[in-house]
Amino acid sequence: MKSALNFLVAAREREIGELEQLTQTSELVSLVGRLIHALQKERGLSNVFLASHGRRFAEPRERQMAECDELALQVHARFDSLDTGAHGPRNGSRLFGRIAEVLHGLDGLPALRRRVAAQELRAEESTAAFVGLIAGLLAVVFEAADSATDPQITRELVAMFNFMQGKEFAGQERALGAMVFAVGHAQRREQWQHLIESQERCFQVFAGFSDPAASEVWQRQQQDPRLAELERLRRLGGSARAGAALDSNLSQDWYDCCTHRIDAMREVEDVLAANLRGLCERRIAQTRAELHDQQAILGSLERPAGRPAPMGPQLERSIPELLHEQSRRLQTMSDELDTARAALNERKVVERAKGLLMATRRLSEDAAYKMLRETAMNQHRRLVDVAERVIEARDLLMHPKA
Amino acid sequence: MKSALNFLVAAREREIGELEQLTQTSELVSLVGRLIHALQKERGLSNVFLASHGRRFAEPRERQMAECDELALQVHARFDSLDTGAHGPRNGSRLFGRIAEVLHGLDGLPALRRRVAAQELRAEESTAAFVGLIAGLLAVVFEAADSATDPQITRELVAMFNFMQGKEFAGQERALGAMVFAVGHAQRREQWQHLIESQERCFQVFAGFSDPAASEVWQRQQQDPRLAELERLRRLGGSARAGAALDSNLSQDWYDCCTHRIDAMREVEDVLAANLRGLCERRIAQTRAELHDQQAILGSLERPAGRPAPMGPQLERSIPELLHEQSRRLQTMSDELDTARAALNERKVVERAKGLLMATRRLSEDAAYKMLRETAMNQHRRLVDVAERVIEARDLLMHPKA
Repeated sequence: MKSALNFLVAAREREIGELEQLTQTSELVSLVGRLIHALQKERGLSNVFLASHGRRFAEPRERQMAECDELALQVHARFDSLDTGAHGPRNGSRLFGRIAEVLHGLDGLPALRRRVAAQELRAEESTAAFVGLIAGLLAVVFEAADSATDPQITRELVAMFNFMQGKEFAGQERALGAMVFAVGHAQRREQWQHLIESQERCFQVFAGFSDPAASEVWQRQQQDPRLAELERLRRLGGSARAGAALDSNLSQDWYDCCTHRIDAMREVEDVLAANLRGLCERRIAQTRAELHDQQAILGSLERPAGRPAPMGPQLERSIPELLHEQSRRLQTMSDELDTARAALNERKVVERAKGLLMATRRLSEDAAYKMLRETAMNQHRRLVDVAERVIEARDLLMHPKA
Repeated sequence: MKSALNFLVAAREREIGELEQLTQTSELVSLVGRLIHALQKERGLSNVFLASHGRRFAEPRERQMAECDELALQVHARFDSLDTGAHGPRNGSRLFGRIAEVLHGLDGLPALRRRVAAQELRAEESTAAFVGLIAGLLAVVFEAADSATDPQITRELVAMFNFMQGKEFAGQERALGAMVFAVGHAQRREQWQHLIESQERCFQVFAGFSDPAASEVWQRQQQDPRLAELERLRRLGGSARAGAALDSNLSQDWYDCCTHRIDAMREVEDVLAANLRGLCERRIAQTRAELHDQQAILGSLERPAGRPAPMGPQLERSIPELLHEQSRRLQTMSDELDTARAALNERKVVERAKGLLMATRRLSEDAAYKMLRETAMNQHRRLVDVAERVIEARDLLMHPKA
């Protein structure tokens, strides 16, 4: 029969397998990040193109489409290379489901672009289509982060997912502002405010979980003097006086200013991706070394009876020590994993509460978010706590016994 | 390149793989439940044996040891049959680590029993050793519940884990009471109270997640007139007047009364296990049917060009429909899974906060629990919310930027 030590060795072997799988997933996540970046740019360009009735950005839009197509091909090839068999990713059923959605969304891209080119769509409709496609790609990243079992790697993936999500809100803000300035009068103030706050929330979580190197790059970017121009344009475009006239030439300034900021964010993503890669490599090397030690002990124990084990009593002592060490490690890992997963789920909880309020009280997304936020402020509670109460109230109604 | 539909099919295939794995895990959980039950009985018998200086339960203890050994062999064989390769359980690294701890604990059982037989141990020490071993077995069940990705199955496993944990608190209460009555004077009132409350908390979570059949059996058991005797003995043994003399003959009544209740709990566990088995089978059959449909569509799409697909336009429509349906399903599954996992984690959160208070304020386990409970009552908050705040306060101190 297999001994405690056999199972300790098996645990290490599986850990290496899981880490190797995570390395693959992390590389997929980096590539998906690049495609998202390109689609965000196409969305912004398309909006200025539509809102200016085709007068602006026709040519940059064409170039951007080519870049998106090239990256989409790379992502598709990477999807194809995933092992869809039993050796594949841990949460294969969910990940492959998300990938199916993304591929279906990408299949619809040529038709969307034809309608943009023919100006058959309003900027809002085009934005909504891109937002949906990017949300699908982010869902792939989310599944990757949610499936990791190594706490350090989960922390990095949580930082990365939140950063990418924050960047996407920044991209949506760029698209909204581009449309507002191109149309030429202030509007949609609440939606704008919501997008700014959503970014900040994501970047806070990112800062809480990221490694120091990525945080440093991000902190340095916050010193950029061009951010003052962004804030000035935010103030003008999101003016409280709805309908106030705006200089439509500002749409170019706005687009450039946002793009400068969002392009800089790519730098942070690259640092995160490089760190993630390094972390996976180090964790694999470390676990291999542990496995090697344990296999050596196992080998000594299994030598034929009569031939004395070379290490004798030290060896017998070492098994309880190994077990104690792993027990402590499992506990720490479990605690750290919970913390990281909780942060990952906070956004989901807020989104779900928002959805419930939208459905039951027939509110718009912005109004639902505002209600949650104001309740939190009035009750001096965290947003996520209020959101949890909303969900519990629903659960209580649906499962009276729970 | 693989299409959206290819990945939908892959998602279904992986789902079946995961469900088959869960079937195996569920059977392991049932068997572990039986071993826990036997060890709980041995613990209670050993306590009466020790506290009565070997006058009581010498023979039933011997018989119980044989039963434990037989079940431990079966559990060990089941552990051995687990696939430790890449096709093995989803969270292999954690599960195998827990199994290593359990096997090490079982290896120590003969030595423990010799010391009990020679009366070299106090009842508290023997109890602590059994509690540790059973906690290790429950950790195996926890990993099983935590690794499931199917929400219905997760709900059943959460119900089962909480029921088993509640039953274990009932077993600890039996061991404590057996010792108190055998010693012959009232003591350890706080610990007793803690064990009663811990049981109730677990059974509440169980009731919130279990299927109606198991709940019904449990509810019926609560009508048993013998529970009045249990409450009377609880009142006597846990008397507020510490040191009050107790009739030491009551240790037999107490043991019988608790054992009657705990044996009945096995019935609930059997119902839970049977339902879990049935649920796994139904989910596999259902997913196979979905897979079959999707493969049929895929087959029609892939027939050679020129030969028209028999279903034509219906077929093209059906892919977005399939995607929409799966998207809705992924969302529902994710929400339900979060709810079930949150319940699973509540206990962990409370345990962790208790541990932090014990370490930082040098409190006993009971005192730490009491502090959490009283804070919750004073602040009209749930226990788990208070526990979360305690953990967050620690995290803030350790990660100032988080």
